[in-house]
Amino acid sequence: MARAVKAKVAAAMKGNPIRVGIAGLGVVGAGVVRLLHEQAAMLSARSGRPIQVVAVSARDKRKKRGLPKGDWRWYDNAVQLANDPEVDVVVELIGGSGGVAKELCETALRNGKGVVTANKALLALHGDKLALAAEQSGAPLAFEAAVAGGIPILKALREGLAGNNIKRVHGILNGTCNYILTEMRETGRDFGDVLNEAQRLGYAEADPSFDVDGIDAAHKLTVLTALAFNTKVDFKAVHVEGIRHVSAVDIAFAREFGYRIKLLAIARRTPRGIEQRVHPCMVPVNTPIAHVDGVFNAVAAEGDFVGPVMFEGRGAGQNPTASAVVADLADIAAGRGGFAFGAPAAKLGKLKAAAMADHVGRYYIRLLVKDQPGVLADVSAILRDHKISIESLVQRGRAEAANTPVPVLLISHEAREADMARALQRIARLRSMQEPPRLIRIEAL
Amino acid sequence: MARAVKAKVAAAMKGNPIRVGIAGLGVVGAGVVRLLHEQAAMLSARSGRPIQVVAVSARDKRKKRGLPKGDWRWYDNAVQLANDPEVDVVVELIGGSGGVAKELCETALRNGKGVVTANKALLALHGDKLALAAEQSGAPLAFEAAVAGGIPILKALREGLAGNNIKRVHGILNGTCNYILTEMRETGRDFGDVLNEAQRLGYAEADPSFDVDGIDAAHKLTVLTALAFNTKVDFKAVHVEGIRHVSAVDIAFAREFGYRIKLLAIARRTPRGIEQRVHPCMVPVNTPIAHVDGVFNAVAAEGDFVGPVMFEGRGAGQNPTASAVVADLADIAAGRGGFAFGAPAAKLGKLKAAAMADHVGRYYIRLLVKDQPGVLADVSAILRDHKISIESLVQRGRAEAANTPVPVLLISHEAREADMARALQRIARLRSMQEPPRLIRIEAL
Repeated sequence: MARAVKAKVAAAMKGNPIRVGIAGLGVVGAGVVRLLHEQAAMLSARSGRPIQVVAVSARDKRKKRGLPKGDWRWYDNAVQLANDPEVDVVVELIGGSGGVAKELCETALRNGKGVVTANKALLALHGDKLALAAEQSGAPLAFEAAVAGGIPILKALREGLAGNNIKRVHGILNGTCNYILTEMRETGRDFGDVLNEAQRLGYAEADPSFDVDGIDAAHKLTVLTALAFNTKVDFKAVHVEGIRHVSAVDIAFAREFGYRIKLLAIARRTPRGIEQRVHPCMVPVNTPIAHVDGVFNAVAAEGDFVGPVMFEGRGAGQNPTASAVVADLADIAAGRGGFAFGAPAAKLGKLKAAAMADHVGRYYIRLLVKDQPGVLADVSAILRDHKISIESLVQRGRAEAANTPVPVLLISHEAREADMARALQRIARLRSMQEPPRLIRIEAL
Repeated sequence: MARAVKAKVAAAMKGNPIRVGIAGLGVVGAGVVRLLHEQAAMLSARSGRPIQVVAVSARDKRKKRGLPKGDWRWYDNAVQLANDPEVDVVVELIGGSGGVAKELCETALRNGKGVVTANKALLALHGDKLALAAEQSGAPLAFEAAVAGGIPILKALREGLAGNNIKRVHGILNGTCNYILTEMRETGRDFGDVLNEAQRLGYAEADPSFDVDGIDAAHKLTVLTALAFNTKVDFKAVHVEGIRHVSAVDIAFAREFGYRIKLLAIARRTPRGIEQRVHPCMVPVNTPIAHVDGVFNAVAAEGDFVGPVMFEGRGAGQNPTASAVVADLADIAAGRGGFAFGAPAAKLGKLKAAAMADHVGRYYIRLLVKDQPGVLADVSAILRDHKISIESLVQRGRAEAANTPVPVLLISHEAREADMARALQRIARLRSMQEPPRLIRIEAL
């Protein structure tokens, strides 16, 4: 580390520019170039030296991007940025958990160049290995933009709360899902309908699966968890459910009972290990996170000294993401370093995962049943068999004709996840069930 | 700067402990000592080197403080900490805008020792001079604990949002006031009553003036403003009003019209310069800050790239404040530096203050009038004379007997502060007025 640190300090002291190579000139890349251009003088004053884009790489050189004029070298192959001796820091905005993005980051770090990336998929799978490579060569690795867009949450956890044992971190990490759930609540429309609209408006991708199935939030949670608890990343340990099965009925029920439905990403120390889960939650309407709506993100953490804190802001979009990328560049320019995951990469412990089967909580369950005598008796008996007690149960209206389906909604007292899963398997097999039972966990935050 | 930086880097590379001297062993000082003791191993891993308390100073050596056992030198005179060659960083927790606190910080910085302080009064009056002294000797100066307790808001503004021009920063910066206003809202009780209770519970000082008259919040705002806009501190330019005149009537009116009353500290770029003001505000109940209750603090900022962000947490208390002090120590231990107010102290511009007289906004006004014909005609005529138009006007009930006072509450459309002040002066002189008119500004955030 010594040599790289000394060189960095020497460069900073001379006020030499820090030379940046940007890989990927999509929405975010173009935003970074524009921010660095528009705020150049301010950034130079704040960082103590200019931040200069000297090289770029993207797939199509001829595409119009509306970029400010710049005197930069062009590379068709992004990995070449990592071999350019006049590049100090590579900004990786290609995306994807492997391929060129991974090769670029690895090569840059090996060559002692800093890496700033917004790539949560890559970090969720290989973050600790990249951090190790960074520390071995003394190069900085930073990824504020990978989680919660413009909100400087990683810096807050890593530095601002450095004196705390973090007990829990949870948040709304996917703006697409939050937008869809907010729209569903405000308009009463169904998931599919709102998703179509979100796609038209550009808030959801043509293939929305990464977002609506919770994978994007799980990638981000993986990074947050590793940083909050100083462990290796463990994406496979995340329990992931998306929002496809949240229905207008659920949202109406939530409203009636004082809840809102949010896709939360939760990491928590428990006596059984660390829980990592992403799934729709009913949260009490009087909690701050219940009021984080639309495309906004929020991250709440609980430290043993600081107590609860919450950070809120735009979780995606060109400008907020560029803001986070540039903050990392400003840190590197100013010589502000540290350990990417809060502690030396070689000392990050393996994450001891708590089994989801042992999770204990309250549950909301929605059944669609034929409106006929005995159904509720059957359901209640199964729940009783699995030691699950019912806090409230609502049958929505009566069927207009005999044997047509009606929703039955219930809330359980605290129960073990494994017991609930087994009970629902049995309930699903009842002949009166018209669709698989659906479950939403209730979170007291 | 060169020598100090090199020495710091060299020390960090060897993993040498950073040696801390703590001045002031009150609630916060004891918390810092305890935190550093309890989390020593974790902090050492995160910072790359141990953080060791080697010397302390407080008024009474014999006082029982329940501190962990430590092998530290004792100084009766805090300033001696700054002359101890074995102290690298001084933590100033004495308080007060001058006297020993100021002398200690100045001496320490002059001697090349780092200073961490929670002293907002000192910073609000002398912050830029201290920053200059720090940069001249290459010593770090940090004060995360001075604003919003455990919330790492200064780091967020200075580093996390470094790529942004900040347009506005506002917040709830005084937990005592927020506790009192929350209690008043929730219980319907009057200011004096709730203040007495807050004093009994230890949430308010025996002399509550610093808190309830808005001075504490104004000190904190001064620091936030300088950091957000990279200007010199200018405490005198802050328009300050406290919460003594907020009444149960106002709170009931606010509820009815969809507002909550909060003591906000607001700094804003305007075409006329930078506005800095602390006063009770009516904020729409659907804004996030309206839901920050009790002793919690929150700070919201708006950057040109990141958009709106908000940070929330405990703004005072032993453990949250210790968390912030220790975060600063961890930064210094890890060699993470920067400019105390976000840009080089010598280049901080003088703050161009916008005159409060030119402020434009909506106003809530409470009058206590004798219930007699013609009063409202008089009031309306005066407002009209000053180009103030009324959005709504409510007379609360009717007097039981003739000539007994009744409240009249009104909300204006947008008006200029100077016009409103002149109108209220004239209204105050009406013979039917039973107490001075009271004004609360309405903020659309």
